[in-house]
Amino acid sequence: MNFKTYIEATGKRAVQLAMIADQVSKDSGVTIAVAPQFTDLKSVTEAVEIPVFGQHIDPIKPGAYTGHILAEAVKAAGASGTLLNHSERRIKISEIEEALSLARVSDLATLVCTDTPGVSAAVASLNPDMIAIEPPDLIGTGVAVSKARPELITNAIKRIRSVNNSVDILCGAGVSTAEDVGKALELGTQGVLVSSSVVKGPNPGQLLENMTDEILRSK
Amino acid sequence: MNFKTYIEATGKRAVQLAMIADQVSKDSGVTIAVAPQFTDLKSVTEAVEIPVFGQHIDPIKPGAYTGHILAEAVKAAGASGTLLNHSERRIKISEIEEALSLARVSDLATLVCTDTPGVSAAVASLNPDMIAIEPPDLIGTGVAVSKARPELITNAIKRIRSVNNSVDILCGAGVSTAEDVGKALELGTQGVLVSSSVVKGPNPGQLLENMTDEILRSK
Amino acid sequence: MNFKTYIEATGKRAVQLAMIADQVSKDSGVTIAVAPQFTDLKSVTEAVEIPVFGQHIDPIKPGAYTGHILAEAVKAAGASGTLLNHSERRIKISEIEEALSLARVSDLATLVCTDTPGVSAAVASLNPDMIAIEPPDLIGTGVAVSKARPELITNAIKRIRSVNNSVDILCGAGVSTAEDVGKALELGTQGVLVSSSVVKGPNPGQLLENMTDEILRSK
Amino acid sequence: MNFKTYIEATGKRAVQLAMIADQVSKDSGVTIAVAPQFTDLKSVTEAVEIPVFGQHIDPIKPGAYTGHILAEAVKAAGASGTLLNHSERRIKISEIEEALSLARVSDLATLVCTDTPGVSAAVASLNPDMIAIEPPDLIGTGVAVSKARPELITNAIKRIRSVNNSVDILCGAGVSTAEDVGKALELGTQGVLVSSSVVKGPNPGQLLENMTDEILRSK
Repeated sequence: MNFKTYIEATGKRAVQLAMIADQVSKDSGVTIAVAPQFTDLKSVTEAVEIPVFGQHIDPIKPGAYTGHILAEAVKAAGASGTLLNHSERRIKISEIEEALSLARVSDLATLVCTDTPGVSAAVASLNPDMIAIEPPDLIGTGVAVSKARPELITNAIKRIRSVNNSVDILCGAGVSTAEDVGKALELGTQGVLVSSSVVKGPNPGQLLENMTDEILRSK
Repeated sequence: MNFKTYIEATGKRAVQLAMIADQVSKDSGVTIAVAPQFTDLKSVTEAVEIPVFGQHIDPIKPGAYTGHILAEAVKAAGASGTLLNHSERRIKISEIEEALSLARVSDLATLVCTDTPGVSAAVASLNPDMIAIEPPDLIGTGVAVSKARPELITNAIKRIRSVNNSVDILCGAGVSTAEDVGKALELGTQGVLVSSSVVKGPNPGQLLENMTDEILRSK
Repeated sequence: MNFKTYIEATGKRAVQLAMIADQVSKDSGVTIAVAPQFTDLKSVTEAVEIPVFGQHIDPIKPGAYTGHILAEAVKAAGASGTLLNHSERRIKISEIEEALSLARVSDLATLVCTDTPGVSAAVASLNPDMIAIEPPDLIGTGVAVSKARPELITNAIKRIRSVNNSVDILCGAGVSTAEDVGKALELGTQGVLVSSSVVKGPNPGQLLENMTDEILRSK
Repeated sequence: MNFKTYIEATGKRAVQLAMIADQVSKDSGVTIAVAPQFTDLKSVTEAVEIPVFGQHIDPIKPGAYTGHILAEAVKAAGASGTLLNHSERRIKISEIEEALSLARVSDLATLVCTDTPGVSAAVASLNPDMIAIEPPDLIGTGVAVSKARPELITNAIKRIRSVNNSVDILCGAGVSTAEDVGKALELGTQGVLVSSSVVKGPNPGQLLENMTDEILRSK
């Protein structure tokens, strides 16, 4: 679950939201990871046991890089992984490779966001731990993956599998209901990346429960 | 004191370094602010009483900005100010103005870095709280401001004062010894911005003491 | 007149459009400059006598900068000036200063675009030849400067004049009719920066004539 | 041959240099393409018969993109192809895919630069016409590919061929003599991408002749 820079997931509210996810994960047995802002990483990792991810790291080693995000610092704050190349924070292909390498050195799991089937295959050839496919047609348009053309996801999966058999694939857009989660799994993904529907919704705990129920049903 | 992304100032070592600065500041009565990485902001603000600054904020309001730095989040982590436009993290002029406005809304003091006299004057017209002049000839070249041509600083001060009488002016490059601090004050600045000389030096506490002694002597 | 990357102003159509502007300028005696794409600069400068501007230059000297825009190359193509920091091609404040310096060396006139009063004053302190104010409320919203709150322009002019008495000031947004041109001049600007209304309009020559008539009337 | 923004390959000197390459190509029967600056594209394409490439295109369609490079405009200037993602002009992976698609629509051949084996494979999965491998260890360090560790190139070729059998592969760094050209072909590349050694050398025509001789010998 990506906290983005929503005010509903900033500071104390980031810790509260992470604790809700922690509880749902423990109750259901379904893995839920949270990705709060950098400033909240330490408070969140101290409050929960589920995996905590950074939202980005820069392709830099320790040094004179004021205002940048160092893999070692994300790790020192207790995170166990990081997002990379989110549609709101795209980086260059050489930077993705360098950041993947730096994340591995700091023992951070990596989840790289992609958009089209071609870009998904390109990223898959760099061997990240996870890929979250965010088809442009599904991002922020309110179009549910359960109702949109399923080939947007299945084509990307096919292209990824042609170069990489082991990477975990998530559906990263068009998921806002339990029904969408079920559809994403049915299409062949191993999970989903959610954000505003939970973070800004009226009852994050209830929605997460509905989603984990759907995941258990789908297995 | 800018911690940059030096490994000597990451995680627990960021807290230790901030505590040293805190002690020197209390002993000397001289104001010292520290600017750790975002991931260390909360731990540092909980450990010290001196002002803590972020190293950067993005010109964004709460929302869908994965991997970005929100003024409200920096404030929620306990910081009382932020650097902006550091030579290692330059932003556009419209972004500086927007970030200054957002910082004010979040009650964060602002320190904007500049390089030439012209850019210093341009930034001064946007009314930040502080400006740190980093003449390109002095950045990372090991050239001490005490030995370089003093007009690099005095010209910038003159241009700044032609448009802004109240902004505090710091010397942001070429400062690595107590002698450099004295020279910077003599040239008409109100303080200095230091980094590697202290952070990566053999004895940060001793160097900070020497610098604050020099500041007290200069008054 | 900014040709942007409109297909109606690309290749041969760039030359045709520039020739229309050339004719209207000669007939009316009103100065009209055109800013075609880099690839069309040479053909356009060979076809017309009015001033031809580049749309941007990079803050670089001759050297290893593949894919960048060199001031000397823009000059060699026959241009007499360049736009800088257009809202669609923002650059950093240090880059604006460096580009202004490089343009002067290559004897290119400079027109820097700005948005708010604060940014306009900041840029004015760098002494460009011209500033085009593009208030965010007027850009691409179809709001005519003649109908919008006039203080958007007058406040920017006031801030610019507080630091710079000689720079020419243009109104760079919300101008699509002769009436808008008249209003812009009335507010205290020395001219306007137009684009889509002429480039993509049904009759560029007629609209330019109406605008130059209005300028002559306003004098 | 990449003209970069060298002053020796700007304006009239770009045309002269292209004419030298044109003559060597005709005399030897070896294909040589030239990539001058955008402002020189039209003059160069009018003066020579060899393929002329742009140095970059932006991932944009015709529209409001002041200061950007439109595929249609590069084509209209007579170019038959474009470089993409040069080490001096890196773009994001999604932008590479979009630019490749736009280049195809405008009937421009594509040559994408890459650095490591991983990035080379990633780009290869996007199906450009050509890839130029620029191993970081060979870029601008004066290290000849003929003397450096050959696995820098052969590993990249192996990774590329694992996902793409048809793309042409060029050696894009460490090539400044005829001997380097021979070594590059021997390692399994189909050609080379040269720049400063020819552009800034004392006798471009002679060096190009030596290089084409070496290519003919290697066949």
